[in-house]
Amino acid sequence: MNADVFAVVMAGGSGTRFWPVSRGATPKQLTRIVGERSMIQATVERLHPLVPADRVLVITTAQLADETRRQLPQLKPEHVVAEPVGRDTAAAVCLAAIVVERISPGATMLLLPADHLIEPAAAFQQALAAGIAHARDGALVTYGIMPRTPATGYGYIHLGDDLPAHHGVAVNRVQRFVEKPDAATAQRYVDDGGFRWNSGIFTWRSDVVLAELEQHCPWLTEALAPVGAAWGTPDFAAVLERVYGPLRKISIDYALMEKAKTIHAVTGDFAWDDLGSWDALYDHLPKDAHGVVAQGPTLTIDCHDSLLTSHSGQTIVGIGLEGLTVVATRDAILIVPKGRSQDVKKAVEALKERGRGELL
Amino acid sequence: MNADVFAVVMAGGSGTRFWPVSRGATPKQLTRIVGERSMIQATVERLHPLVPADRVLVITTAQLADETRRQLPQLKPEHVVAEPVGRDTAAAVCLAAIVVERISPGATMLLLPADHLIEPAAAFQQALAAGIAHARDGALVTYGIMPRTPATGYGYIHLGDDLPAHHGVAVNRVQRFVEKPDAATAQRYVDDGGFRWNSGIFTWRSDVVLAELEQHCPWLTEALAPVGAAWGTPDFAAVLERVYGPLRKISIDYALMEKAKTIHAVTGDFAWDDLGSWDALYDHLPKDAHGVVAQGPTLTIDCHDSLLTSHSGQTIVGIGLEGLTVVATRDAILIVPKGRSQDVKKAVEALKERGRGELL
Repeated sequence: MNADVFAVVMAGGSGTRFWPVSRGATPKQLTRIVGERSMIQATVERLHPLVPADRVLVITTAQLADETRRQLPQLKPEHVVAEPVGRDTAAAVCLAAIVVERISPGATMLLLPADHLIEPAAAFQQALAAGIAHARDGALVTYGIMPRTPATGYGYIHLGDDLPAHHGVAVNRVQRFVEKPDAATAQRYVDDGGFRWNSGIFTWRSDVVLAELEQHCPWLTEALAPVGAAWGTPDFAAVLERVYGPLRKISIDYALMEKAKTIHAVTGDFAWDDLGSWDALYDHLPKDAHGVVAQGPTLTIDCHDSLLTSHSGQTIVGIGLEGLTVVATRDAILIVPKGRSQDVKKAVEALKERGRGELL
Repeated sequence: MNADVFAVVMAGGSGTRFWPVSRGATPKQLTRIVGERSMIQATVERLHPLVPADRVLVITTAQLADETRRQLPQLKPEHVVAEPVGRDTAAAVCLAAIVVERISPGATMLLLPADHLIEPAAAFQQALAAGIAHARDGALVTYGIMPRTPATGYGYIHLGDDLPAHHGVAVNRVQRFVEKPDAATAQRYVDDGGFRWNSGIFTWRSDVVLAELEQHCPWLTEALAPVGAAWGTPDFAAVLERVYGPLRKISIDYALMEKAKTIHAVTGDFAWDDLGSWDALYDHLPKDAHGVVAQGPTLTIDCHDSLLTSHSGQTIVGIGLEGLTVVATRDAILIVPKGRSQDVKKAVEALKERGRGELL
C-alpha cells in the first residue's frame, strides 16, 4: 500500500472582500491578512511535518503562479500548477488527482483551501491523520467543524452513523450535505448537535477519487485524461490549456460529494474560519480591554470594538471610534462600520466603474 | 501725510489642531488646509491690490522663516522677520511697528493673522479701507464680525457710539473688549446686536501705536528701541536676539487695547473664521447633498455629514459613515467623529509621550 501523503492547496481564488489589502494580483491567500506570513504560506507551514514541502502541490491561476512560487520557494516549481482558466472545483480536484496519481499512484491526497484560518496546527494535523487513515481504506473524507454560532454563511454536514474514533478524533458517516441555511435553520442545526460546518477540506486516495469521478462525472475525467499523459513533458501546459478551456464549470460538491456513497466526516477539534470579511477577521483576532484590534502603527484614544490595520506604514490615529474598521494600504484607505464589511464589494464595483482599476 | 499702507502678517503660530496636516515645521498657516494655496499665501493674495507685495511684512519664528520666504517669493526676504523666541503679541506688534516706522515713518499698518479664512477679498478690502481712513486720523482700529452664532470660542467687542460710516461700512467707538463668554452670555451678546466677534485684525499708524505703547507699556518700547537703530544693518538679527529674549510675555489686548482711549471698531461684512478645528473647516466648506465634504481622491457610499480629506494621494473609501472626519497624510491618518476634533490635541500629546515626534 502507498504510504505517501500529498497536500494539494487550492489557491486560485480572487475575492474582493479583503480589499484594499487583497488585490487582483495578490488576492487574500497571497496577502498577510494575519501575522507575518501570507495565508498560503501559513497553510503550507501548518502541514509541517505531516506533509513535507516536496509533496505539496498548489493549484492556482496563470496570473498568480509566479507570485505563488515566489512565496513558496520550498515547493518544487512544477508543483505549482496553473489552471489556464477557472473551471470550478471539480475540474481542479480532477486535475490535482491526475497529477498526484502520476507522481505516486494510489497516494493519499489532502485538499485544502489556501485562505482559511486554522489553529492550532497540532489539532489540525491530528484531524488530518484520522482522515488519512480512513482515506487509505477507500473513503472520501471531509472535515466538519463543531458550529460555535448559527452561522448562515457556511454549508453544513449532517452527520450519520458513528464510526470508530481515530486516536480520539470522532469520525462519522455523512448523512447529507446541506447548503447555507437561513438563520432559523442554522439555529436548529446548532441545537441538534449532529451538524458540522463544512470546512471544504477533503482527503482521499488519488486512484479512489479518480474512479469516483469516472463513475459520477465521466465527461470530466475523459476530458482531462490527456493531462496525465503530458505530466512531466514540455507539452504539459499546452495540453492543459487545450483540454481545460472547453470544460463545463461544476463544483466538487455537486459533481461528487452529493453522489458518492462512502463519505466519512472527521470532526475537527480546531479553530477554523474561512475569513469571509473584515468583520470575520476582527472576530478572530485578540482584542484589548476595549475590544480594539490594532495591527501596525496605531494610536487609539477612547475607541471601542474597532479594527485598525495599517499596511502602509502610516500611523492610524483613532479618537472616539465605535465599531469601525479602518484599513490603510499604500494607495487606498477603507473605512467601514462593523456589520457592513460585506459592502466592500460595492466599493470595489464602484471603483471599477469609475476606471480606478489600478486600485483593484 | 504719509499715504503708505503696510500689511504685517502675524505668522508665528504653532498649533496642533489641524494635525496631521499641520506639523511643527509646517503649522496651519503654511499648509494647504483649504484649496491650492497655503493659508499665508491666501492671506497675502487677499490684500492685492490694496497692499502691494513689497509692503507686506511677516513676523514669524526662526524655525519657520525659511519656509515662509519660500512660499512668499514675491516678498522682500528681509521683510520676513523672525522672532528669536515667542514673546506674545504685544512684542510682535511693537517689533513690527518699529520696523514699519523705520521704512516709512508714520505709515499705516494692517495687522493680520496668517491663518484666518476670510472671503470675499473685495468686502474684506472695503472694511480695511474704512479702517485705514480712521487709522490715518490717529485711531487704533479693530475689526468686528457680526456674530452668526453664539460662539464661545471667540472674544467679543462691545460697540459704543456710532461714528460716520465709511463708504457704507459701519464704524463705532469701542465700549469694551470681552473675553470668550459662556454659552448664555454669548447668546445675550448675539441677541443684543451691539456685540461683534473680535477678529484679531488691527489697523493703526506706526507712529501712533508706538506712542500708545510708550504710554501704556513703556518697558516694551524701551527694550525694543535698539531694534529700530539696527534695522537695515548686519547687526539686526543679533540685536533682536539680545533684546527679545528677556521680554515679558504680554498680549496686545492686555498691553494696549484694554487701556487705549481712541479705539474704533469697523464692522466687517465678510465671512470670517479663525478655523480652530477640523469641525470648523467642515462647517466652512461646500458639501454634497448628503453633507459630505471630500478633498482629494475619495469614494463615498452611503456616507453623511462627514469630512474626508486625502493629502497623501491615497483614495479614501468610506462606506456608511456618519459624522466622521478622516484626514490622510503621508505618514499618519486621523479618524475622529465630528464634535470631538478638539481632542486632536490629546492625540498629539500622546504621540509626543510615546516618542513619535517624527509625526508632529
